[in-house]
Amino acid sequence: MHFNLDRALPTPLVQQLTEQLQAWITRQRLRPGARLPSIRTLAKAQAVSASCVIEAYDRLVASGWLEARHGAGFFVAERKPGLRPDPGEPWGEAIDGSWRQFREGHEQLLKLGCGWLPVAWRAEAELAQAIRQVSRGAPEALFDYCPPQGLASLRLQLHKGLARLDIVAEPERIVTTQGASHALDLLVRTLLAPGDTVLVERPGYYNLYNLLRLHGVRMLEVPRTASGPDLEVLEQLLAEHRPRCLFINSLYQNPTGTSLTPKVAYRLLELARGHDLRIVEDDLYADFQDGPAARLATLDSEQRVIYLGSFSKTLSSSLRVGYVVADPPLVARLAELKMVAGIGTSRFAEQVVGQMLANGSYRKSVQRLRLRLGQHRARTLGLLEACGWEVFCEPVGGMFVWGRVPGRDFAELERLALEHAVLLTPGSAFDPQGRASEWLRINVAYGQDSRAEAFFRHAGRPLAV
Amino acid sequence: MHFNLDRALPTPLVQQLTEQLQAWITRQRLRPGARLPSIRTLAKAQAVSASCVIEAYDRLVASGWLEARHGAGFFVAERKPGLRPDPGEPWGEAIDGSWRQFREGHEQLLKLGCGWLPVAWRAEAELAQAIRQVSRGAPEALFDYCPPQGLASLRLQLHKGLARLDIVAEPERIVTTQGASHALDLLVRTLLAPGDTVLVERPGYYNLYNLLRLHGVRMLEVPRTASGPDLEVLEQLLAEHRPRCLFINSLYQNPTGTSLTPKVAYRLLELARGHDLRIVEDDLYADFQDGPAARLATLDSEQRVIYLGSFSKTLSSSLRVGYVVADPPLVARLAELKMVAGIGTSRFAEQVVGQMLANGSYRKSVQRLRLRLGQHRARTLGLLEACGWEVFCEPVGGMFVWGRVPGRDFAELERLALEHAVLLTPGSAFDPQGRASEWLRINVAYGQDSRAEAFFRHAGRPLAV
Repeated sequence: MHFNLDRALPTPLVQQLTEQLQAWITRQRLRPGARLPSIRTLAKAQAVSASCVIEAYDRLVASGWLEARHGAGFFVAERKPGLRPDPGEPWGEAIDGSWRQFREGHEQLLKLGCGWLPVAWRAEAELAQAIRQVSRGAPEALFDYCPPQGLASLRLQLHKGLARLDIVAEPERIVTTQGASHALDLLVRTLLAPGDTVLVERPGYYNLYNLLRLHGVRMLEVPRTASGPDLEVLEQLLAEHRPRCLFINSLYQNPTGTSLTPKVAYRLLELARGHDLRIVEDDLYADFQDGPAARLATLDSEQRVIYLGSFSKTLSSSLRVGYVVADPPLVARLAELKMVAGIGTSRFAEQVVGQMLANGSYRKSVQRLRLRLGQHRARTLGLLEACGWEVFCEPVGGMFVWGRVPGRDFAELERLALEHAVLLTPGSAFDPQGRASEWLRINVAYGQDSRAEAFFRHAGRPLAV
Repeated sequence: MHFNLDRALPTPLVQQLTEQLQAWITRQRLRPGARLPSIRTLAKAQAVSASCVIEAYDRLVASGWLEARHGAGFFVAERKPGLRPDPGEPWGEAIDGSWRQFREGHEQLLKLGCGWLPVAWRAEAELAQAIRQVSRGAPEALFDYCPPQGLASLRLQLHKGLARLDIVAEPERIVTTQGASHALDLLVRTLLAPGDTVLVERPGYYNLYNLLRLHGVRMLEVPRTASGPDLEVLEQLLAEHRPRCLFINSLYQNPTGTSLTPKVAYRLLELARGHDLRIVEDDLYADFQDGPAARLATLDSEQRVIYLGSFSKTLSSSLRVGYVVADPPLVARLAELKMVAGIGTSRFAEQVVGQMLANGSYRKSVQRLRLRLGQHRARTLGLLEACGWEVFCEPVGGMFVWGRVPGRDFAELERLALEHAVLLTPGSAFDPQGRASEWLRINVAYGQDSRAEAFFRHAGRPLAV
């Protein structure tokens, strides 16, 4: 198996590889079920990047030539009549990076750069039980639309849970969403118009940047420090630009893992008051909280903070359940948009989550996760240190460590990672302008895997003894 | 119990009633669990509209004063500490009408005007079984995000099902959505800019109007006739305005129940070709098809038709599963927006629907629904005729009949309906401009209920014998 891939051609390498793989499968008369070479093997053999192979395989899956089998790799698919041989360009090159972690068929790679916990950590027995209970309960949960603001029983449980964080959130101040990104979309569409200016953290959540860009909103960047946003820069931007709002993770920020100190949190609210700034506090790692924490929504006394939560990180990314806490007029507008743009959320999913909140199984499962995350975080930090990695800040909770090996750029890191079957997310994804970065988001839940260890060692620069 | 409601005050009646109900509950020291008067009783006693009572009760539920118990009415709730006595105005008056059918607590009213089938008709055993099977299967379905285009196994089933309707839709031409309204939202955001002009049917789907209005899109109205859109008007609008696209239900249109004739369908595609018009064919009643049908996506040979489907009407509105069929570049843009605006759909829900498609239980359950709908449609049409109602057109399939009693306006119909515990949706909701209408959307699935019969008789004007 050798392909003639020519970098000088105007046809992108991915497309050349895709087409030559198709031709090869046909020429070799490969039968359905025949296994394709692993991503690493093929990348090495053809001297292309692993990303290129991943993308070619993805396209062949999308067009029905291959199928991805969980944990086992890629196989020739049963050919369906009516499938066209060439699916065209299903994905723009620009967006490949961000969603690769979400595609099917990469289960054999370790998702060290991803933003969620391994399936093996999750509360499988508890969630499956709650699902079965709901399936045996009142049939409305299986069939009916959800009310505009979300299921009242879930909102009551959320209200109780938030009271434990000292956040006043009566059920009528809550609207449910399909996770935090859906919440952000509803907020951006409701609060902002194209041309508006907002503050975002740098580095920060790439999909928030995508969303704001899509909506034509201008982003002002506030550097994230170990104790929260850089207040000097923030104050200057507030004075110069009068932005509409600030988007922030207070706890265990994505991607740096840093948390607000109480002093920064307090001063941030003072600045917000002085400049009439609204704050969107995306607190989706709230239930990973270990020890004390400074939350803006807890300190806020004037409904300046719009608070977001989600169950995607702590319970299930599959169910799509999150929520927004805001003043009732804004909640009404968000609920209206939620109906207009999709006739609401899933009653079934909300019933399942509400039940796990009510019967305590959610609380117990996040206790377990916290403990396990803490152990993995400590070990991963130790390992990174031993391997000569630089860490932006030692996080006190959550999933993420922001690390680098000074002098190693992403292309080099990715090459080394794929040699060890490790899938990274580029640091540039966490920059509002997509600027190249040496920094990597490391998900500590995957940091104990031998593939991650080998990658850390191989890429690191241990101090000479 | 008597309240001083004063129409001369600037405070809306709903708010007066809400506040006086609160005061009354407090004054009477009503205990948690005490039952409130029925909507009809209270409306009659206070000489206000039933809508006013419904809205007041809804607000009191939202603020925690009352709770709605399924099928039993409204009761004083256990007071939660921290609940504010006055929730303000959670819902704008303007939007009350549209979403009333979606709120909790109106189960004692017959939803004759609603757009879905009764829970009792649904495939409860089959869906519950599929849910339990998925809960026992691979844990990825419970926990993981869904790939951007949707689960490959579901798209394969959709591809097979559409082939039976003679629609060519390879899996790579399909992107899943959270139902048809979410699909419409993705399409509007991807294809249209504020200020663009599109064609919509009149009467038509109110939430499509909401969505287009929200997006600042100008609507040109094409009257719906018994055989499809009025082609003369359409041709004139095409020539004068060069609209970007047409939104249409080909089969069993919402709300008129009418279907395209083959001749109209063919001519429509000719016109679309001549004026380079795209067509968004929302075919969410496809699986109710009884007998032959003319579908644009079947006839379309140049990928001019964007096709939408949903399982909300035929299987479950709770799961939120639908899809779009389009050319691969548009599918890629829709999938990208779907990720940016909410990190995709529910893998769990897609796995459940995919399973029911694969094992045949979905097909069997819609066969039952079709049969039952056909019987109810025939009987409801007979009843309406006997009661002196005028019907826009006798539908050959689907849920809806568009009927009126000439000379009776909506206010009068609603009053009569609520006397019989029947909840209507105003005809004005199906007009792009919200113009008053004598016409009512009648959901035949509820037409055999004795409350509906009593309403038809009471409101009708039988011919003198």
